[in-house]
Amino acid sequence: MTVFVSTPYEKDNGDFNDLPAHVWPHSAKREEDGVVTIAGVPLPEIAAEYGTPVVVIDEDDFRSRCRDMAAAFLAPENVHYASKAFLTRRVARWVDEEGLALDVASENELRIALAADFPPERITVHGNNKSDQFLRLCVESKVGHVVIDSHQELAQLEAVAKQAGVKQDVFVRVKPGVDAHTHEFIATSHEDQKFGISLATGDALSAAAAAITSDWLELTGLHCHVGSQVFDAEGFKLAAERVLGLYAEIWKTQGVALGYLDLGGGYGIAYMPGESPLDVNAVAHDLLTAVQEVADELGIAAPTVVVEPGRAIAGPSAVTVYTAGVIKDVDTSYTTSRRYVAVDGGMSDNIRPSLYGALYDARVVNRFTDGAPTDTRLVGSHCESGDILVEEASWPDDIAPGDLIALAATGAYCYSMASNYNAFGRPAVVSVRGGEVTPMVRRETVEDLIAREY
Amino acid sequence: MTVFVSTPYEKDNGDFNDLPAHVWPHSAKREEDGVVTIAGVPLPEIAAEYGTPVVVIDEDDFRSRCRDMAAAFLAPENVHYASKAFLTRRVARWVDEEGLALDVASENELRIALAADFPPERITVHGNNKSDQFLRLCVESKVGHVVIDSHQELAQLEAVAKQAGVKQDVFVRVKPGVDAHTHEFIATSHEDQKFGISLATGDALSAAAAAITSDWLELTGLHCHVGSQVFDAEGFKLAAERVLGLYAEIWKTQGVALGYLDLGGGYGIAYMPGESPLDVNAVAHDLLTAVQEVADELGIAAPTVVVEPGRAIAGPSAVTVYTAGVIKDVDTSYTTSRRYVAVDGGMSDNIRPSLYGALYDARVVNRFTDGAPTDTRLVGSHCESGDILVEEASWPDDIAPGDLIALAATGAYCYSMASNYNAFGRPAVVSVRGGEVTPMVRRETVEDLIAREY
Repeated sequence: MTVFVSTPYEKDNGDFNDLPAHVWPHSAKREEDGVVTIAGVPLPEIAAEYGTPVVVIDEDDFRSRCRDMAAAFLAPENVHYASKAFLTRRVARWVDEEGLALDVASENELRIALAADFPPERITVHGNNKSDQFLRLCVESKVGHVVIDSHQELAQLEAVAKQAGVKQDVFVRVKPGVDAHTHEFIATSHEDQKFGISLATGDALSAAAAAITSDWLELTGLHCHVGSQVFDAEGFKLAAERVLGLYAEIWKTQGVALGYLDLGGGYGIAYMPGESPLDVNAVAHDLLTAVQEVADELGIAAPTVVVEPGRAIAGPSAVTVYTAGVIKDVDTSYTTSRRYVAVDGGMSDNIRPSLYGALYDARVVNRFTDGAPTDTRLVGSHCESGDILVEEASWPDDIAPGDLIALAATGAYCYSMASNYNAFGRPAVVSVRGGEVTPMVRRETVEDLIAREY
Repeated sequence: MTVFVSTPYEKDNGDFNDLPAHVWPHSAKREEDGVVTIAGVPLPEIAAEYGTPVVVIDEDDFRSRCRDMAAAFLAPENVHYASKAFLTRRVARWVDEEGLALDVASENELRIALAADFPPERITVHGNNKSDQFLRLCVESKVGHVVIDSHQELAQLEAVAKQAGVKQDVFVRVKPGVDAHTHEFIATSHEDQKFGISLATGDALSAAAAAITSDWLELTGLHCHVGSQVFDAEGFKLAAERVLGLYAEIWKTQGVALGYLDLGGGYGIAYMPGESPLDVNAVAHDLLTAVQEVADELGIAAPTVVVEPGRAIAGPSAVTVYTAGVIKDVDTSYTTSRRYVAVDGGMSDNIRPSLYGALYDARVVNRFTDGAPTDTRLVGSHCESGDILVEEASWPDDIAPGDLIALAATGAYCYSMASNYNAFGRPAVVSVRGGEVTPMVRRETVEDLIAREY
């Protein structure tokens, strides 16, 4: 084995043959022959049968994170899996079987959940701009909660519920004005954004009061969302404190104890070896303790705390396996060079590096590597120079065309945001469990791409 | 009509009822009743029939830009339409009927072109990471040119051509080291990027020499790509000068006059009223004159200059029409507020504002507006606070739910990069010409979204 000099590689990746346990799926393992298996299934076998790129989901990993969240937040139904991270009917069934609730944020997400026979009473419906048609579907299919995002929607939903003769359970989404430490793009609790109703202006209270006095709405909770990739309870606690103030005010002025405090999603995951994983139990404990303390101070019964993890469940459970193609050394100055390793996917199946500057941990998964560390950039096959999967890494110089390279923690916001850019078909998706492979989504073909053309 | 105070709106948008001719499709017109028509077809009629969001392409606009490019660059076959901007079989047929050549950058783009019966001899094939299967399809379908992007690909293609018993015409993609003034993400000519073979290191010359001596490759030109959203000839001229040096060197050392200089794409368009449109004739004239002068200096016959516009043809020809939904005023400080107008699409049908910080000109298209200018942000319906279509504008305050709002210049890199994020189906696409609407792509349904699931 090469002795590694001090490089970003050594600092960030350690031994390139390792699979950092807090980044890779629970069952990922490099076997004695150097091949990486997940749930006992060799990734090269999956690549050979399903082609590459292919998304491989460790079903037990996904399910265990559902259970961890359920235990930390005291009951499975207090955990609402956020569909937008990754949703197929099969995923919806896993979530159902684990007893979790489900968040949907569009009419089609709701339709997919219903097509999977997800119990509607455990579905919570989000969205800043719900159409009448969407709200009718919510009411008619008897979803558990609709999260009202504006006064306009409140009037809309009231009319829809009245027409259907149904009293609809609702939450009100409150904008508490907390800015969690996170990427600007994905920070959602500050005032200047599209979601929620402002607490500071009094609009949230008036919306809550209007919902309470409505004959067609039943206000049962308040919702707020702090941000994304949050690792500690501080941001949540501050938001919870503010929203609990409103909760207490509603109790005092309207005489109604709502019952639920939905603190949204945003639980972070470790994408890189140098990052710490989320300590779900510690965050949950901190948060629940804080809610109890604030409730005590306010003299109210503490509401049931509900959370909406998507990334924290789906993210670490999946890897995307690519095949290396062209490898090119580029002189970046008279004395430095960079190796470009191209794989058979890219920004069409994972837009996050381009869109958010997201970092990923990638490893060769078909064999041991044993080369000298080399400044390397992992790029895709798209006709765009910004089509980069890993911008900067120090990888062994024996990576060769035909090697399989997997990116870890691609379970959330990769497949769900995938495009057909450059007419790339979207990858196949399979799940693995107990040595068995179950195909979930077949690879998209060129026939699929032109099927909707006239 | 309101008298507008000095705001970004006034500076950028002028009268909100105008349709700046250099940004909107040629035939876009606001009629006397305030309704906007394209090719004589009222956009509200299209919205009523096809739903929103809907992409409306002015076919004559698209075709006229093909012809303008063809005239400026002396012959239609010198202009290669870049498929990646927007490709359906119908678009490929328009390009064919106008006599242009076609650039493809993936196996599926090639398959779509072939499915449209695009003449293969007028197809040029790009890509930094072409598979053997892709190269075999190129050779077997007798495409005009394969643009070789690396020494590795040169060997690959030689083997494939040999096996097929075909001598394949090729260009070599040269990295000339020119950095056109453009967005960092989409600048593609500097050295530290995945595309091309370095001129500076001598690799480009050795690749050209290898292609020339190969029994299975016929080198007929050199290719380079300067960047994106380029409006003047300077960057192209500098690149052309450098690549012509190599061209002359090949002539002198190998005794071969290649014939073609492919200067790639990158021709800019005006997205905003304050931007100047591309003067195609002036840029072409400057560029062709410069090439002739450099060729004269080098004592060689000037090669035929080939260009690859995508955005400059497809971009301004289309608009995306949305329906306004929730409208929300947000206090951004004690004294300022911002109006959020949400529409029924967003980052799934147009990722460019989020991905590149791209700006768009948007207007109400179903009626005249006449409100006071108000700081406004146009957002989508996705469950993400970064889902913004127009970040900052000053629009009339009488925009109401149900109004139709169209973004101009969405013909390139919007539909081709569209996703199903939040399980949104992709929009319908129609073309308009002479008062007639032709459906091109039907709206994607939830049944489409789950069709590939097992």
